[in-house]
Amino acid sequence: MRNLFEIDPWKIIETNFDPNKQKQAESIFSIGNGSFGQRANFEEKYSGPSLQGSYVGGVYYPDKTRVGWWKNGYPEYFAKVLNATNWIGIDIKIDGEHLDLNSQKIKHFHRELDMKNGLLKRTVRIEFNNGKELEIDSIRFCSMAREEVAAIAYSVTPINFSGNVKFTPYLDANVHNHDANYDEFFWIEDSKKVDMQKAILCTRTKKTNFAISTAMRYSFWEDDELLQIHPNIAQSDFYVENNFEHFLTKGKKYTLKKYVAITSTINHSEFDLVPKAIKRVREAYITGFDKLKQEHQAAWANIWKSADITIEGDSASQQGIRFNIFHLYQTYTGKNAKLNIGPKGFTGEKYGGATYWDTEAYCLPFYLKTADPSVARQLLIYRFNHLDRAIENAEKLGFKEGAALFPMVTMNGEECHNEWEITFEEIHRNGAIAFAIYNYIRHTGDTDYLTTYGFPVIAAIARFWAQRFNWSEDKLAYVMLGVTGPNEYENNVNNNWYTNYIARWCIAYCLEVNEMSEIKTAHKLDEREINKFKHIVENVYFPKLKSTQIFLQQDGFMDKEQLNASDIPRAQRPINQHWSWDRILRSIFIKQADVLQGLYLFEDHFSTELIKENFDFYEPKTVHESSLSPCVHVILAAKINKLEKALELYLRTSRLDLDDYNHEADEGLHITSMAGTWMSIVEGLAGVRILKEGLYIDPKIPQPWESYSFQIRYQNRPLAISVSQKNVKITNLGKELLKCQLKGIDIEILADDTYTLELNQAQ
Amino acid sequence: MRNLFEIDPWKIIETNFDPNKQKQAESIFSIGNGSFGQRANFEEKYSGPSLQGSYVGGVYYPDKTRVGWWKNGYPEYFAKVLNATNWIGIDIKIDGEHLDLNSQKIKHFHRELDMKNGLLKRTVRIEFNNGKELEIDSIRFCSMAREEVAAIAYSVTPINFSGNVKFTPYLDANVHNHDANYDEFFWIEDSKKVDMQKAILCTRTKKTNFAISTAMRYSFWEDDELLQIHPNIAQSDFYVENNFEHFLTKGKKYTLKKYVAITSTINHSEFDLVPKAIKRVREAYITGFDKLKQEHQAAWANIWKSADITIEGDSASQQGIRFNIFHLYQTYTGKNAKLNIGPKGFTGEKYGGATYWDTEAYCLPFYLKTADPSVARQLLIYRFNHLDRAIENAEKLGFKEGAALFPMVTMNGEECHNEWEITFEEIHRNGAIAFAIYNYIRHTGDTDYLTTYGFPVIAAIARFWAQRFNWSEDKLAYVMLGVTGPNEYENNVNNNWYTNYIARWCIAYCLEVNEMSEIKTAHKLDEREINKFKHIVENVYFPKLKSTQIFLQQDGFMDKEQLNASDIPRAQRPINQHWSWDRILRSIFIKQADVLQGLYLFEDHFSTELIKENFDFYEPKTVHESSLSPCVHVILAAKINKLEKALELYLRTSRLDLDDYNHEADEGLHITSMAGTWMSIVEGLAGVRILKEGLYIDPKIPQPWESYSFQIRYQNRPLAISVSQKNVKITNLGKELLKCQLKGIDIEILADDTYTLELNQAQ
Repeated sequence: MRNLFEIDPWKIIETNFDPNKQKQAESIFSIGNGSFGQRANFEEKYSGPSLQGSYVGGVYYPDKTRVGWWKNGYPEYFAKVLNATNWIGIDIKIDGEHLDLNSQKIKHFHRELDMKNGLLKRTVRIEFNNGKELEIDSIRFCSMAREEVAAIAYSVTPINFSGNVKFTPYLDANVHNHDANYDEFFWIEDSKKVDMQKAILCTRTKKTNFAISTAMRYSFWEDDELLQIHPNIAQSDFYVENNFEHFLTKGKKYTLKKYVAITSTINHSEFDLVPKAIKRVREAYITGFDKLKQEHQAAWANIWKSADITIEGDSASQQGIRFNIFHLYQTYTGKNAKLNIGPKGFTGEKYGGATYWDTEAYCLPFYLKTADPSVARQLLIYRFNHLDRAIENAEKLGFKEGAALFPMVTMNGEECHNEWEITFEEIHRNGAIAFAIYNYIRHTGDTDYLTTYGFPVIAAIARFWAQRFNWSEDKLAYVMLGVTGPNEYENNVNNNWYTNYIARWCIAYCLEVNEMSEIKTAHKLDEREINKFKHIVENVYFPKLKSTQIFLQQDGFMDKEQLNASDIPRAQRPINQHWSWDRILRSIFIKQADVLQGLYLFEDHFSTELIKENFDFYEPKTVHESSLSPCVHVILAAKINKLEKALELYLRTSRLDLDDYNHEADEGLHITSMAGTWMSIVEGLAGVRILKEGLYIDPKIPQPWESYSFQIRYQNRPLAISVSQKNVKITNLGKELLKCQLKGIDIEILADDTYTLELNQAQ
Repeated sequence: MRNLFEIDPWKIIETNFDPNKQKQAESIFSIGNGSFGQRANFEEKYSGPSLQGSYVGGVYYPDKTRVGWWKNGYPEYFAKVLNATNWIGIDIKIDGEHLDLNSQKIKHFHRELDMKNGLLKRTVRIEFNNGKELEIDSIRFCSMAREEVAAIAYSVTPINFSGNVKFTPYLDANVHNHDANYDEFFWIEDSKKVDMQKAILCTRTKKTNFAISTAMRYSFWEDDELLQIHPNIAQSDFYVENNFEHFLTKGKKYTLKKYVAITSTINHSEFDLVPKAIKRVREAYITGFDKLKQEHQAAWANIWKSADITIEGDSASQQGIRFNIFHLYQTYTGKNAKLNIGPKGFTGEKYGGATYWDTEAYCLPFYLKTADPSVARQLLIYRFNHLDRAIENAEKLGFKEGAALFPMVTMNGEECHNEWEITFEEIHRNGAIAFAIYNYIRHTGDTDYLTTYGFPVIAAIARFWAQRFNWSEDKLAYVMLGVTGPNEYENNVNNNWYTNYIARWCIAYCLEVNEMSEIKTAHKLDEREINKFKHIVENVYFPKLKSTQIFLQQDGFMDKEQLNASDIPRAQRPINQHWSWDRILRSIFIKQADVLQGLYLFEDHFSTELIKENFDFYEPKTVHESSLSPCVHVILAAKINKLEKALELYLRTSRLDLDDYNHEADEGLHITSMAGTWMSIVEGLAGVRILKEGLYIDPKIPQPWESYSFQIRYQNRPLAISVSQKNVKITNLGKELLKCQLKGIDIEILADDTYTLELNQAQ
């Protein structure tokens, strides 16, 4: 696999413009700030293949469901994040000819994503068809310091001529979703106003009635001197612009500094929407580009301080891990409980930008260990706020008494997905949501959350499981029929081990929390429920392979033809692109960790030998055709000392999008699986575990690496871990004594102190 | 359940016009002749709710597939029969006011479907808003004697006035399919020509390029006197008409006799299409309405002679069974191997008018026993002609070496259906197609067919099964994973007993036929295949219930909550309208005969005790939410002497549409299940079996009936069976000695002789 772009520890760099890579690059060089995001489209006109994409968090449209054969219980619509007003636009024209990288000669091209500072930069020298050469320098960012603000400094320098150049900064809301079931246009125009050097454009979604107000201002500079200009103003449907011609002197640099504010009814009343956008853009304009940039960079520095992972000795891995961390923080910052983490973040439209179980299973551990607990808490509150909808959803499917089934895909708590085998059957998601609460509690010790917000969710989920199990007279045990496990290459199976296990765990955890005196009486389980729950916990059936410690993925698993992924001819990989669905289903091949997902989550319930036996059984059968799969395998491989396997799978996950392994980066990045990459290092190689009982660290380091280091938070106290081929250093960055277990040794570290363990001695 | 229309042994009669019943009536009173068919829409304008429907056999459009989430192997389109040119239209206007039963006062209404003669008749007296009363008498039919011809005699009699009335006979091809995935219009206009008292309109399907030519001529009569008229001619897009005003004398009857010919490129070259339509309509015109009607009635008389069932003592059952037989013969006559039997015939658009396994499993036995063997043979040839497509279809799914998977739904051999659990998994259909050949052979003794056309199909199907089974190291047997059995309330199950059984039977039958010396060497199985097939036949796994003779529907069946259909609250029936799909799937409830379907097909492999044990186990769990279900239960119930149960289920199937049990007759009738109703009597109550070994008859008669009688064919020899409460009479209508077993007694009957068995003695 050749690298798609150049390797640099802090940057993604592209020095040869290839129109065939433009859509991939637009995804990979995307910028965002947790509130909104923007693909790396060019500011100026571009006539080549491109996916123009600007997305505002939380603003969605209920796109009428498309279905071949309707089944009872299917949702009416799929709520999807919307491609919104294009705010980056600055058109350039010389002698009537548009600047357009697709139709002119490119003499020099440099695009870079500066991940340290959160900047998208571009330098291009272009020759117009009349021979005039222009250099473009642009820098843009979505401010991490001001969540409704973005800014662009767009400079042009005439290289071999002096003459007129026409500048057209604009806002354009004529944007159609690439992902629309019936090619509908989702927006209506609310209002617009355009004046000299400023404009505002307000649009509103059909049906959902979300309004977005996008305001712009700009200034125009010759080198460092502010110029007075007298632009023309123009407007049309869903569109506002300024345009002006200016005489440019050869060799001088002319910069258009464009400031943008985007407000939405997610955060503002209808009344405030426009004034706030005008206020924000005015503030930004007055603050000025450089100062805004400094603020933004400072915010990023603060994130990197606690979230960075450094890797010495492998610059591809270094770049890969930072790329993942960077995009995660661009997508979600935890400032707003109405937002969540779409599988593609703000980098594309696939999967509708909605919330999946990815959030709880993959992203939450990342934010728990790298950010203030309030960030993870927002993710939990998001689901808490959807509890009533989850109860309604379960009622629709025939459940009673306050049982809740959280949706597979959602924007507002209502289910969006409509494949029966997923929507109705991939119910393990409910378990991940309960486990996330448990995980949050053991990371933060925030038992107030548990008793006030956590328990109602846990109890509703436990009630669902208790009804979803049924007693088998044949097995004299509780069974769970007709489910789809995390391995979506099996549908409608009976007794998926993972689902049965997490379901039983939920019921048991609910019983445990129910005992806490802080739980309100009104919420408590009644006697009948307690007895039923206990009976289930004691009598759940789990499929096992005779005379081994291997848990079977589901009933009948051993009836399959016993093959390994290596038996599949190369030309038939990935099988999901080459095989019919039934062939995939009846084959033994596993899309993503399933039994192993359970062993990962509940690792402390099982012996290392058992984990090894299961890993050796399942890993060879796993085709990793989900981006969420390799990380779990990395973590378990590291645990059982298969470091080579761990590294192989780590590389696959960390540069998945950067090197576009699956040829789909053009559609957007795998944001949620990026958290898995981070977990691969922290929980995998570094062996960090935060269990109820405490903090455990068991680091390993693969051969090619010299060292790696990172910070985590444990019970809201920061510590730094650094692992080299020689030793492990743990630095207590907090103010209190830190206790943990390092490679089986109980240690205590004073505030600001560092504990060093020489690895040769320890191993 | 109240009867929807009046009871009469030979007629369906409606004497009170109810606009709310119009769409049901349009289905129930439909007429057709195996080549084309027409819903019972009114000739004149009707502004109330109506489904205008005119369908031409074999003419289909590949409607782009609608799917929520695409899976590899899904077809690109769903081929559906098209709503074609409306040829019945005759508009009537008085003083500018349209005759329209929805907006005028109906003083008398009588509609009847005369099943004996194949006529749709209507008499209506209507009062126009200006007080003028008109009586309408219409008779129409699709000629059973001339497969491209239809005729209407439409009479009006002014009751209380003399005055001008305007007549507008027309052809209108502005017809949209009710069933269209994207509301597309499927037709283009090819040509049209309209002249005095004649017109022709040619339309062509988009994409598939089928052309249809519809020609009309008409004459106009005052009582028995032919009138000269000078109509205006008019045309517009997809439309041609004549119109003329005529002064009508009070009390006289004015009749417009409209003759129509419909030719299509199914049967004619592009070149012949128009001339043939013109020729056919001219011939019909010259022949005249009365003569055409006589021919048509004679053709029906001929059908009834061998296909009728008479029932004494229960006129509702009598009407019901004739209604079923009538619609079957209207739908399929066996004249054309390009045609087949859509689940709704020509009575509606649901299911796309395409071919399902219904044909082989339900319709074939009907035609085998009531019609010349050539009729059933055409149905087999239809599939034989699709063998190459079935092989391609299997290849698409990953099968090799000439394995064939016939489609779930098709018009041309290509698969149309796109639910993975059906399309890829409901593969038992393949077994029904092989069994149909076997069944044909044992009914007809036509071994030439077997060796020439039958074997290639059987071998290709057997090859499919041999690859679809896989060896289970766990069970040390061949298993079949991931299938959907006839009971579609289970999806993606392992070891569906029915599928395993019919698959093994196919392979065994293939081995047997392979031994026949007449099989061409090129077609024969090779040694490797023979050995593999034999190994499979000896080692297939079948799920069974311990210490019983009960075959389990599939692996894990006993893990379900063990309930009976009677446990479902009435308000939740049918469950497919009230329960989510996953709830249906994990429940024990059975949509239609599954294990019992196998016991029905292979009854001679099992003891009556075993059948009884399985029936008693499965019948209470069956909700019969497929129209194809009750008949199989009737047959088995009769066999095990549960006559009350048999009659209860018989009544449910025989008047399903006539009394519209499922509130869906408006969409069309359940044509294919009508054959099951016929089987309920002949194979069920009368206990007729045609096995390889010979003809077996074991008649029973339910209490309410005095007697019933019918004819069948056995080895192409006709016989009549009559069963009363007292005796059974078998009459040999053929020319050779007839041998059979009657209630366990071997008997021989000379030609034209009758054997009588007194029932008191025999029982």
